[in-house]
Amino acid sequence: MSYNPPVSEQRFVLDHVVGINELTAHERYAAATSDMVDAILEGAGAFAAGEYAPLNRAGDEIGARWADGKVTMPPGFREAYQAFVEGGWGTISAPEAYGGQGLPNVLGTVIMEDLGTANMGFSLINMLTPAAIESLIAAGTDAQRDTYLGKLITGEWNGTMNLTEPQAGSDVGALRTTATPTGDGLYRIKGTKIFITFGEHDLTDNIVHLVLARTPGAPAGTRGISLFIVPKVRADGTHNDVRCVSIEHKMGIHASPTCVLSYGDNDDCLGELIGPEFGGMAAMFVMMNNARLNVGLQGIQIAERATQQAVGYAMERIQSARAGGATRDPVAIIEHPDVRRMLLRMKALTQGARALIYYAFGQLDRAHLGDADAQDRVDLLTPLAKAWGTDVGCEVASLGVQVHGGMGFIEETGAAQHYRDIRIAPIYEGTNGIQAADLVGRKLGLGGGAPLAALIADMRAEAQDAGLRALIDDVEAVAAHLAGSGPDDRLAGSYPFLTMLSVAVGGWLMERQGRIAAGVDGDPAFLAMKRAAADYFVGQVVPEAAGLKASALAGAELLYSVDAAAFAA
Amino acid sequence: MSYNPPVSEQRFVLDHVVGINELTAHERYAAATSDMVDAILEGAGAFAAGEYAPLNRAGDEIGARWADGKVTMPPGFREAYQAFVEGGWGTISAPEAYGGQGLPNVLGTVIMEDLGTANMGFSLINMLTPAAIESLIAAGTDAQRDTYLGKLITGEWNGTMNLTEPQAGSDVGALRTTATPTGDGLYRIKGTKIFITFGEHDLTDNIVHLVLARTPGAPAGTRGISLFIVPKVRADGTHNDVRCVSIEHKMGIHASPTCVLSYGDNDDCLGELIGPEFGGMAAMFVMMNNARLNVGLQGIQIAERATQQAVGYAMERIQSARAGGATRDPVAIIEHPDVRRMLLRMKALTQGARALIYYAFGQLDRAHLGDADAQDRVDLLTPLAKAWGTDVGCEVASLGVQVHGGMGFIEETGAAQHYRDIRIAPIYEGTNGIQAADLVGRKLGLGGGAPLAALIADMRAEAQDAGLRALIDDVEAVAAHLAGSGPDDRLAGSYPFLTMLSVAVGGWLMERQGRIAAGVDGDPAFLAMKRAAADYFVGQVVPEAAGLKASALAGAELLYSVDAAAFAA
Repeated sequence: MSYNPPVSEQRFVLDHVVGINELTAHERYAAATSDMVDAILEGAGAFAAGEYAPLNRAGDEIGARWADGKVTMPPGFREAYQAFVEGGWGTISAPEAYGGQGLPNVLGTVIMEDLGTANMGFSLINMLTPAAIESLIAAGTDAQRDTYLGKLITGEWNGTMNLTEPQAGSDVGALRTTATPTGDGLYRIKGTKIFITFGEHDLTDNIVHLVLARTPGAPAGTRGISLFIVPKVRADGTHNDVRCVSIEHKMGIHASPTCVLSYGDNDDCLGELIGPEFGGMAAMFVMMNNARLNVGLQGIQIAERATQQAVGYAMERIQSARAGGATRDPVAIIEHPDVRRMLLRMKALTQGARALIYYAFGQLDRAHLGDADAQDRVDLLTPLAKAWGTDVGCEVASLGVQVHGGMGFIEETGAAQHYRDIRIAPIYEGTNGIQAADLVGRKLGLGGGAPLAALIADMRAEAQDAGLRALIDDVEAVAAHLAGSGPDDRLAGSYPFLTMLSVAVGGWLMERQGRIAAGVDGDPAFLAMKRAAADYFVGQVVPEAAGLKASALAGAELLYSVDAAAFAA
Repeated sequence: MSYNPPVSEQRFVLDHVVGINELTAHERYAAATSDMVDAILEGAGAFAAGEYAPLNRAGDEIGARWADGKVTMPPGFREAYQAFVEGGWGTISAPEAYGGQGLPNVLGTVIMEDLGTANMGFSLINMLTPAAIESLIAAGTDAQRDTYLGKLITGEWNGTMNLTEPQAGSDVGALRTTATPTGDGLYRIKGTKIFITFGEHDLTDNIVHLVLARTPGAPAGTRGISLFIVPKVRADGTHNDVRCVSIEHKMGIHASPTCVLSYGDNDDCLGELIGPEFGGMAAMFVMMNNARLNVGLQGIQIAERATQQAVGYAMERIQSARAGGATRDPVAIIEHPDVRRMLLRMKALTQGARALIYYAFGQLDRAHLGDADAQDRVDLLTPLAKAWGTDVGCEVASLGVQVHGGMGFIEETGAAQHYRDIRIAPIYEGTNGIQAADLVGRKLGLGGGAPLAALIADMRAEAQDAGLRALIDDVEAVAAHLAGSGPDDRLAGSYPFLTMLSVAVGGWLMERQGRIAAGVDGDPAFLAMKRAAADYFVGQVVPEAAGLKASALAGAELLYSVDAAAFAA
């Protein structure tokens, strides 16, 4: 099943949710004319469909292979990656000072969406490099920026994030990798990192590892962590002492090598500090927040691909007459009400999640232009984008399998790959439970609660539907309740609250789009579907989320009414 | 992770949901003393844990292999299957006239649950044979019964169901396989069947295929279908002309060979008619209804196994201090509120689905004792058991992956296998959408609506919680609305209605169990967990289901407000 880039949808969301014209009215983004935006959308879609999508099944079936410390990508990947570099697709929203085109981040988002929709596993190499770029821009020295930024931006080199160790997953502060000063400004890195995406491969000549480690005498926990840059190939052309000792056998994203990296086995792994000593956690949050929005975007990627595939199958597969129909002739299954319900749900959830995530990226662009309120809003929306976006991806991929019936369970069809691939997204870059904890722990109280209050006010000023308005009221009431609760009660309600708030935001932005679609000129089929998806979201998804209120308010007492051991009884 | 049979839970549900004592009070089941019930529960659990569970990972990793028409099972499967036969585990609830022990069906259910929890893919051979047994008991001649029943009951031979053809999936009436009389009472079978579970393997000396086919001049559609019995090895010891031409490469249940069977390539495939000519659909429903309840049971199997595995991991994995806790020492993740929320949800959903499905099997036993109302209730509950039971299985398996964090996505952990294995269950034996159509199309109107009215009356007579009572009211109102609607509107609301009704039944039976658990003697840990699971189900799962009311009532207008082609816009 080929990939058909949703250009009309992307442009509509940029226009009516992101407000791209407001962004491009700013002198910094003046180069992004409306024609250029169209050209990027068309071009990125065509590139992804032409170069990345055809490799998606091979990425799954052959996958990245490890032998003797080397990782070999499936045939065709090196050429496609080279085409990405040569096409300049990595440069769109990077700073002009380092060879970027300086266009709004949200346009980089569209490109990332296209790449991941075409080939999620492969696109992780494109997704993680920007985290390294952000870290260097935020905290690197001029020399570090000069050395690395240009090649990271084009993609000639890729970046990796090295946080996790076997005993230090969600609890990053438990990491043990050490960094010992050599005396000449460098550090010897020693330790083992796991779950390192594209930590080794044969697509680029160099790999730039960003590594969290502890300097001698550093305080325990997260306060004692520093960030280091460790290139696979050093400036003098010698190889650093870092080795890929294995890759994981995973349920999905087989095209993405998930590496165990061993640093300093021979005490010859040299790295440089980025930013101040003990500045590792701050730097990590710079990397993570970027990555979290992008993981949320992966939810849309697979949702879009799974929907396209299911629609294609449902239009071709002929089975059974329509119940109550005029004839007994079998019809395409898209004509059956419950199949159509599944497809409309897929469309509505995908569009709702896209609206929320594009909106968040649009706020990030405003923040980069100096709007502090926009930064607060991004901070508030990041856990929603990551957690709800990936939950939507999983649900839609599952519906995609279901629409295929028995063929959905057969690997050759491809629907199963989407279901397997996306299941990592609620887990990595902070599990969705960690996102929910971030929402109720850090984000609810941000600025004394002002960012949430402002968001609720914006939603309330525009929302029309009584059910949507009731959900916004519920969200406000639950937030007030959780803000006044102790940590256990707050965390017990965190996940259902995150879903409620996400659906409220999605409903707000979908209702707006439906209203606009009723009054603008454009492709009648696209506009009709936008209206139907908006009606479904507001009329049917929103009431479901209201059903989570009891859970969000339930508190922790029941959870601890039994001993841990009783769970095994 | 080994399998720990949930004997206390199984016995509690048999006592307080099934009413096993009422069944065994009947003279036909007098042999099933309370001690014998305990012995079967303990013995079946130990057998499944000892023989089937250790093969579960190999079943996934090696899987069934096809070569030259033969299917080879992984090492150890033949010995474990032989132990099943020799242990007499297939005979428990089979009729005494054919070597069975004549005990209540619901005890066979417990055994089936244990086998499938231990090894879902493998256990399909045990699950499908009873469908063949039921068909022969319902419609076979004395000679057919004498030839086949004994060996099917012990499991020396296994049975298969041959319905599906490439163009005939949900629409069974579209099948093309032919059966031509030979003149001496036999039929020559010719055609291709797909998705045939254990259609070929090396575990037994013979395989008994039940095949739907058309006789010459048969009417089109389902009215022209007849059922045939086609043994792999004929009575004279010669092989029938049936060949396994391939097996599918599936997302899960790799231990279960899913075969393409070609009948009569050399015009030498001989079968016998079972039951009357054109009696195929009636016979199919006998097979299917049995199988549908058993597929629902698979939902519990994986839910149970995934829960056990997640609880085990969460008790061992140490990560992060408890938020707001007295110390900064890291704790087992089961101590964190959101992990505990996931685990309690897994327990509550698993127990709720087990209650509904065991209850349905208990009603089947009453029906076999001549209770017509009980048969109506089984008919009503069968689509709920199949669809909601398997939806629960998928959700709980997904939560199990999530509890494992990054390790959940790594295949060696085993959590991913459960997630992949169970995804077939909402699809086969009639997709869950077909179940929802069956519920609103056939079952709502059954007996003028009396079976549903009786179920609602029973629930209302016992339910205490205001939210649960409100859901029962909603279910009644939605049912009345759907019963008065046209087919499109009815089908558009069918799936959310099915979930609402299922959760109402689950809530009714869980609330009852929670009440009983508060007043009986027993293992304090088990009883405390039962009460907590009941409170979670009634207090938090029930309100979610109420949130589906808008969808159930929405009708089909929105679904058809756009052309099919617009879904691809």
